Amino acid sequence: MKKIINKPGDFVDEMIEGIVLAHPDQVKIPGDDRRILVRADAPVTGKVGIVTGGGSGHLPLFKGYVGKGLCSGVAIGNVFSSPSSQQCFEATKAVNGGAGVLYLYGNYGGDVFNFDLAADLAELDDIETRTVLGRDDVASQPKERKHERRGVAGIMFAYKAAGAAAERGDSLEQVAAVAEDVVEHTATMGIGLSPTVLPTTGEPSFSLAEGEMEVGIGIHGEPGIHRGPLETADAITDRIIDALVKDLELVPGDRVAVLVNGLGATPLEELYVMYRRAHQVLSEHGLSIEKKYVGEYATSLEMAGASISLLKLDDARLELLNAPASSPFFLEV
Amino acid sequence: MKKIINKPGDFVDEMIEGIVLAHPDQVKIPGDDRRILVRADAPVTGKVGIVTGGGSGHLPLFKGYVGKGLCSGVAIGNVFSSPSSQQCFEATKAVNGGAGVLYLYGNYGGDVFNFDLAADLAELDDIETRTVLGRDDVASQPKERKHERRGVAGIMFAYKAAGAAAERGDSLEQVAAVAEDVVEHTATMGIGLSPTVLPTTGEPSFSLAEGEMEVGIGIHGEPGIHRGPLETADAITDRIIDALVKDLELVPGDRVAVLVNGLGATPLEELYVMYRRAHQVLSEHGLSIEKKYVGEYATSLEMAGASISLLKLDDARLELLNAPASSPFFLEV
Repeated sequence: MKKIINKPGDFVDEMIEGIVLAHPDQVKIPGDDRRILVRADAPVTGKVGIVTGGGSGHLPLFKGYVGKGLCSGVAIGNVFSSPSSQQCFEATKAVNGGAGVLYLYGNYGGDVFNFDLAADLAELDDIETRTVLGRDDVASQPKERKHERRGVAGIMFAYKAAGAAAERGDSLEQVAAVAEDVVEHTATMGIGLSPTVLPTTGEPSFSLAEGEMEVGIGIHGEPGIHRGPLETADAITDRIIDALVKDLELVPGDRVAVLVNGLGATPLEELYVMYRRAHQVLSEHGLSIEKKYVGEYATSLEMAGASISLLKLDDARLELLNAPASSPFFLEV
Repeated sequence: MKKIINKPGDFVDEMIEGIVLAHPDQVKIPGDDRRILVRADAPVTGKVGIVTGGGSGHLPLFKGYVGKGLCSGVAIGNVFSSPSSQQCFEATKAVNGGAGVLYLYGNYGGDVFNFDLAADLAELDDIETRTVLGRDDVASQPKERKHERRGVAGIMFAYKAAGAAAERGDSLEQVAAVAEDVVEHTATMGIGLSPTVLPTTGEPSFSLAEGEMEVGIGIHGEPGIHRGPLETADAITDRIIDALVKDLELVPGDRVAVLVNGLGATPLEELYVMYRRAHQVLSEHGLSIEKKYVGEYATSLEMAGASISLLKLDDARLELLNAPASSPFFLEV
């Protein structure tokens, strides 16, 4: 696999430098550590801050969701590696506007360990924090162990809703409750067609034979629930939608938001072929599709594949999802 | 290469169906031919219409630029194939608001042939048309034969400027002059790292050895000006910027807009590594970067690679580039 990079060890820092040079009106590096990005206007006095973070290699996740109506800051790790607890803590201080800080990130061991340490440091500094974990990947654990699931593309819904709640002035308790409520009603499943390659090793993260697909793959190439022959776009979409509708226990008349997400190398054309089928099948289930996103929202470098996320909507969730938001990678007005 | 598709022959129609299902508030199919998309509010009475078109496989090009402040309609061909003259003509009628229609598309033989025929049909129908061709690919012809160059990602600047001119009520002559002026001051060069695969054949469009890159590649995999060992991101960016600065004869104090575009499979992270270097080098040239775009704006299905486009700015061009625009794939406020 060929990459447009310089020294592999400089990849993350140079990418961040590019983001800051391209979008100085929207994001900034608040201190000396160049692995922390915050909104250009951070801290926003009197408003709850939201810090996310995780490994690099998933753009626009995570750093792409730092902006108005979204997250306030991000701590950035190496490719597929957690940021340090100190970085999570520095990000916390940089976005603290006096109303507390929500940690909202995907459920991965290293991230949880470091954000929990940061929460302890924040407490010593009299900054109140709450934590909500994205855990939408239905393939990673059965429903009985839902709280152990990995977080994948569906966290975008939680960023959007929690960001809107913080923007309108909700308290830390309220913003955390909004995020938890959205996570609770979000489900995602993906398929992988080709591996991703770490810049540092140059080696594929896993192998898949020609003509094979991995159903339920994670955004770091974690194994899914089924490996088999590549199916048609419709068969793949049916599989995913079926799993999501069951998991969320959706019934006719329910309202949903849909996200068809590309994992990196899959053409946008193919995502629209999938969206078309998802729309048909959801409609056949009697579900009302009230919000739609198609594109790259959480990737795994150059992995070929896609995921679909559903968020079960109610009026409150839809209102927050419809609120304006802007970041270098996300604009809704 | 694996694709998430159904029958290869249905690929384009199913993709279009997905776009219309996902974005019914922004685009519509105006008649019986499902290969024509127009703005949801077309025709806009009294305003100049802008029709673009070309082969599929380049999303967001071309159909992603149909919207307010952009193109009014698009005629859509098969993958890498021109739409028919009848389709170009039907798109013309569907966007005609009585002020004439500009044809704005990339300089490829099949497209030129069919749009020219459509112009003849439009004339018989008393619809005035003008044609401006995107021809920004500096690698496709030397400067002496600039008018023969292929159109690639840089046409986005012309869509944006001409769309803004039409939106503010400029005449057909004026909108065409704006488009021509922007095309004249736009230059693009790309590099390819891996081939694209046509859904219908399943075969790679060309071959590149492991560790090789093609400098100056076209968005259908057309050969470039140099094939050699893959270089670092900085060396690649330097090569491209050097060619563009020379071609546009930029001198210290000049102002530019920059577009770093991914060809499909290249991670956004790598585009930002390139943007970082482009920013450094342009600044070293004494150029003022006044508008920046980083992402996928014109792709070649799952080709790995990237291009950089520069538009030399003056006040008039910058004002049009800063005007609001919205389509399913492009939002600026």
